[in-house]
Amino acid sequence: MSQTTIQSGLSGPQYDAWLGYHAALPGANDTARKAAPLWSKRVEVQEQHEVMDTALTELSQGLGKLYGVQPEMIKSQTQGSQQNERGPAIRLGTWAGSDFAANVLTDAERAAVHGEGFIIREDESQRELVIGSETPQGILYAVFHLLRELTLKQEGAEAGAAAVAVATESQPERIVINEQPVNSLRMINQWDNVDGSIERGYAGRSIFYENGEFTQDIGRIRDYARLLASTGINAVAINNVNVHRKESLFLTERYLGDVAKVAAAFRAYGIRLFLSANYASPIEVGGLQTADPLDEQVREWWSIQTAKVYAAIPDFGGYLIKADSENRPGPFTYNRDHADGANMLAEALRPFGGLVIWRCFVYNCKQDWRDRSTDRARAAYDHFKPLDGRFADNVILQIKNGPMDFQVREAVSPLFGAMEDTNQIIEFQITQEYTGQQRHLAFLVPQWKEVLDFDTYAKGKGSEIKRIADGSLYQRPYSGFAAVSNIGADACWTGHPLAQANLYGYGRLGWNPDLSAEQIADEWVRLTFGHDEQVVERITGMLLSSLDIYENYTAPLGVGWMVNPDHHYGPNVDGYEYSKWGTYHFADRYGIGVDRTVKSGTGYTSQYHPENAARYESLETCPDELILFFHHVPYTHVLHSGKTVIQHIYDTHFEGVEQAEALAETWRELEGKVDPVIYSKVAELQAEQAEHAKEWRDMINTYFYRKSGIQDEHARKIY
Amino acid sequence: MSQTTIQSGLSGPQYDAWLGYHAALPGANDTARKAAPLWSKRVEVQEQHEVMDTALTELSQGLGKLYGVQPEMIKSQTQGSQQNERGPAIRLGTWAGSDFAANVLTDAERAAVHGEGFIIREDESQRELVIGSETPQGILYAVFHLLRELTLKQEGAEAGAAAVAVATESQPERIVINEQPVNSLRMINQWDNVDGSIERGYAGRSIFYENGEFTQDIGRIRDYARLLASTGINAVAINNVNVHRKESLFLTERYLGDVAKVAAAFRAYGIRLFLSANYASPIEVGGLQTADPLDEQVREWWSIQTAKVYAAIPDFGGYLIKADSENRPGPFTYNRDHADGANMLAEALRPFGGLVIWRCFVYNCKQDWRDRSTDRARAAYDHFKPLDGRFADNVILQIKNGPMDFQVREAVSPLFGAMEDTNQIIEFQITQEYTGQQRHLAFLVPQWKEVLDFDTYAKGKGSEIKRIADGSLYQRPYSGFAAVSNIGADACWTGHPLAQANLYGYGRLGWNPDLSAEQIADEWVRLTFGHDEQVVERITGMLLSSLDIYENYTAPLGVGWMVNPDHHYGPNVDGYEYSKWGTYHFADRYGIGVDRTVKSGTGYTSQYHPENAARYESLETCPDELILFFHHVPYTHVLHSGKTVIQHIYDTHFEGVEQAEALAETWRELEGKVDPVIYSKVAELQAEQAEHAKEWRDMINTYFYRKSGIQDEHARKIY
Repeated sequence: MSQTTIQSGLSGPQYDAWLGYHAALPGANDTARKAAPLWSKRVEVQEQHEVMDTALTELSQGLGKLYGVQPEMIKSQTQGSQQNERGPAIRLGTWAGSDFAANVLTDAERAAVHGEGFIIREDESQRELVIGSETPQGILYAVFHLLRELTLKQEGAEAGAAAVAVATESQPERIVINEQPVNSLRMINQWDNVDGSIERGYAGRSIFYENGEFTQDIGRIRDYARLLASTGINAVAINNVNVHRKESLFLTERYLGDVAKVAAAFRAYGIRLFLSANYASPIEVGGLQTADPLDEQVREWWSIQTAKVYAAIPDFGGYLIKADSENRPGPFTYNRDHADGANMLAEALRPFGGLVIWRCFVYNCKQDWRDRSTDRARAAYDHFKPLDGRFADNVILQIKNGPMDFQVREAVSPLFGAMEDTNQIIEFQITQEYTGQQRHLAFLVPQWKEVLDFDTYAKGKGSEIKRIADGSLYQRPYSGFAAVSNIGADACWTGHPLAQANLYGYGRLGWNPDLSAEQIADEWVRLTFGHDEQVVERITGMLLSSLDIYENYTAPLGVGWMVNPDHHYGPNVDGYEYSKWGTYHFADRYGIGVDRTVKSGTGYTSQYHPENAARYESLETCPDELILFFHHVPYTHVLHSGKTVIQHIYDTHFEGVEQAEALAETWRELEGKVDPVIYSKVAELQAEQAEHAKEWRDMINTYFYRKSGIQDEHARKIY
Repeated sequence: MSQTTIQSGLSGPQYDAWLGYHAALPGANDTARKAAPLWSKRVEVQEQHEVMDTALTELSQGLGKLYGVQPEMIKSQTQGSQQNERGPAIRLGTWAGSDFAANVLTDAERAAVHGEGFIIREDESQRELVIGSETPQGILYAVFHLLRELTLKQEGAEAGAAAVAVATESQPERIVINEQPVNSLRMINQWDNVDGSIERGYAGRSIFYENGEFTQDIGRIRDYARLLASTGINAVAINNVNVHRKESLFLTERYLGDVAKVAAAFRAYGIRLFLSANYASPIEVGGLQTADPLDEQVREWWSIQTAKVYAAIPDFGGYLIKADSENRPGPFTYNRDHADGANMLAEALRPFGGLVIWRCFVYNCKQDWRDRSTDRARAAYDHFKPLDGRFADNVILQIKNGPMDFQVREAVSPLFGAMEDTNQIIEFQITQEYTGQQRHLAFLVPQWKEVLDFDTYAKGKGSEIKRIADGSLYQRPYSGFAAVSNIGADACWTGHPLAQANLYGYGRLGWNPDLSAEQIADEWVRLTFGHDEQVVERITGMLLSSLDIYENYTAPLGVGWMVNPDHHYGPNVDGYEYSKWGTYHFADRYGIGVDRTVKSGTGYTSQYHPENAARYESLETCPDELILFFHHVPYTHVLHSGKTVIQHIYDTHFEGVEQAEALAETWRELEGKVDPVIYSKVAELQAEQAEHAKEWRDMINTYFYRKSGIQDEHARKIY
């Protein structure tokens, strides 16, 4: 199964990820060639554009792998070819740049998509496939989409050499595809540091930096851009939101040349580059005495510096800012608010069409654990809601999916639906900081789906978070997704090979939040492992059950945070209980949970619109899985499930371990059916997870048994 | 008050520590000069010896500081001067090298001391002071002792310029001193790494190494040697017992030249240099396939390598070994025991008179917390007791004072008194790993005194640990003290200026374990801060109460370990509860403590001789302060004090905070009365301690209140 990718020396199934296109098995080429559609032998294009060139290369390589023969590439600068002269081919182009698109597609077809959207249409005789879009980016997305669809339809192609024969009979049905990305901004955040480390990275060192310099291996960055673009990503911030001294210099001559090279690698795949910027740059880099956003010198400094950035990178995306958060500098230092801070940067970026992406992860990280009135969950809403309407139109707030910090289970952020007059994007965390750090299996798409489908009732029923994120509910000009990447220099990119599914799934959801977790899992498994039904069923099953399993043996019922401090791996029930981080469970001998009600707690529930506020406020209607997030209850409190809280804790933890063991078992059934390198890696990780799940089980159960004194109904072993 | 020391560029009261000799205050010189004894103007010596030279330099400098005038130094190589020719002078020499010692001192006087012991005798007319010893080392100790006594007698000399006048009337009484060190080995262990870090160091970087090389600043090492020698230290191991790859090379040409330079600095102060060695050196350094102690090649490798070490350092002390401990290699790898391992090294060292110092800190550091039968406290005894009599005569076991690891309170190690036929030294920890890390004040001498005075009953009543450590109980050839140093490159050496008292006190106790904690504290305060009675009383009081205060607000009743993992600073009740380190408290909603009884627990109590075994076994006779070390009891268990365990916890924690605040308060009374740099440093640290003690109080009290549900009798604030 070995094969090469376009740019990098690295190769092999784990590196190719979902873009292997089931490279021909031994002896399969002839069969595959016979199964090839007529149009697959030739590609015609009339335009010259960097992204279009990328699309052509991808198309050529993809078809080559799928059908064993590279298509002939016909490039012509002239338009005006007659329809009746056309032989079998793929013809692709933009509305403006190609007469294929202009002539073959109808006005109505063209009007149906815009920007990065695209049309793929096969004619009746299956001799011609036309790909059209308003933009070269759209063409690139179309190519990846086409190749994905062809791979997914290549039923049985990977089940073994014999099965490839099936392909001869399974001519693709007539292809008509019409796709429009739902979110305009589909962004990835790299938390990479220039020293080569990655904050919360679990897949090796950075592919961007080493030892304080940019990497020389641009090939690897291009390969990454390719993976991202294939799922629909169109923006990337290439450095950690915690911007240290050295990364502050990315905006200066010291590094701008390097940044421009990386921008070029992403540009070829239609991805705009952003930089995380240090709010105190005017001081740290500019040598000014202040970073006050209302100070004229500061504003001027940002304007001049931003102009330099655009001189080096004309399509630079803008700045991603973490300000006044976890000891980062920000406008609070100068008694200004976040609108002042963000708008000042917006002004500097506006002449160039740049954006300010301003994170809302602002809270008191030096809380006294003895102070029960402060509630970290309230913080983002309390800080930002009053500023609604004050942000410039090229400012976007980036809001984490939940009010705390990427726990396996928490409520959704009430800021979604609270700021009608402000651009918002939702931030997810692909890297598994609190969800097993790519040593445990946790397919996160189901969690993201739950958040996206959550109805805020902001404008009545049907005000789902996905409609706020995509800008449609409030008709906002900017909208979308951001997420913290899970990749590193690891050979499989993501530490755990199956964690690739999270990166893939994030991109796909950003393109279309209505895709189901099941469909995404199925796509990813088939693209990565082929169509062997046992393989597909087993791995899809593993993925879709994984997050529930992880939740079962870790912190119960939405309370979160029972992890070791700092590195966040492994169980530690009181790990954050007496800390400054605002993350407590308040377990005593009688009960556990955080009272966030209006009636007797921190009042956090009032930040939701009335329908949700009422549901969470009441013990009767609060969903079981969030009961300890919203309420402090006795261990004997009976859940809707009919179990007491304590019995639920015991049961889920015993069950979670059994499930983790079953995951390992299931995987072992696949030996010989998946790539051997991937097989061993996953087998090792699943064995570790099964073992480590016992640590979780025993520590959590013991902690609560010692504290509550309540016996397990089934008298299982608790220490 | 600024003054210079002999070797180093650094100076000032905090750097001079207890060797400032109350450098003359402005205008005080004349008065001091008048008060000078007749003999202080001239020093006569007949021998040439490096250590003797050091003694002369110290004497000259010390007298100069004390009396404002440097004495005339008369060196003569010829013996035979007539008694009646002698004018006022200090005359010093060894039995063999000087006719002062031979002629003036009587046979009986000379017979009363030997080796490093010494005599100081002033004649009736106070015109002559004779210092004699069998060895130059003895002369050096005598000089430091004399200078100390003179400084301590210089009443009022530092209370201000006016008070110096008192010195004129306080001629020293006739001096007759006869001192013999009780312990033959009085050793310091540096846990310094060649990268410049110090394991468990809280006073800056290493003074020995930086960036993988030996320091160029030998002056600082000499200053340290001087401090050590002044308290009686005669041995030092200069690298961490956890010997990493690079330090393994200390035995080789790569570093031996550097080691020899450091050895020279210590030699001038009569201190022998040891190296911590990696048990796996034959593999790591020698390139052999094994480190099996019974392998001929291995034995030969050690012999050859050791010969190389002695070629570079003829008075090299020997090897300090941490084997089969906390992941260090050792003989267990080859199914050999520790006698095999130690004896193999002993054989290599014997031709040169070298010693093997073999640490007994051997336990299972990968324990499963769920396993209640394994007891780390048992480990050293279980490992080593069966080997009694099997160790070569130049092997010494180094045994930590307690069976766990330098907690603020734990039982004494039952290995003391268990190995009649084995050389043993006791290991203390001067560096405050678990006792506040030189940010909290903790004068450790009272703890060490308790241990030393502990009666093991090994040979019936009166078998105190100090008599085992000094070799007298079993008439062992080697005996003594070892301790982990608390110094670093910090300007005051020890992070907290008052932590100097621990280094001083350790040296003094090693010389004479019968000194009281009160006397040592008084000595140190007067030597460091002078004789102002308020200063002496306040600081002595702070020192002597400090350990009880620290114990009050930290882990209660001997159970230990309620600290943050890894770095060991700050409260974390469950920090080690579910860990692999064998360090648990087993608190549940009913009670707390480790059952180490024979009757129902781990059987650890049986490791003591019957008198102590019975005392600890029974709840009735077990001392309160160790109750949770030996027993698991309900929170409602009533202590001998009449309080319940839970009320004791609450009371001591509230009291501890008040006491910590009082420490800060007391210190603030001394503003203007002590050196301003030291004043500010301590004031800041005591304020921090007072604040941090509240964290301890609240976390511990809250933890136990939440768990027990029992109210504080006095209804104080618990969270």
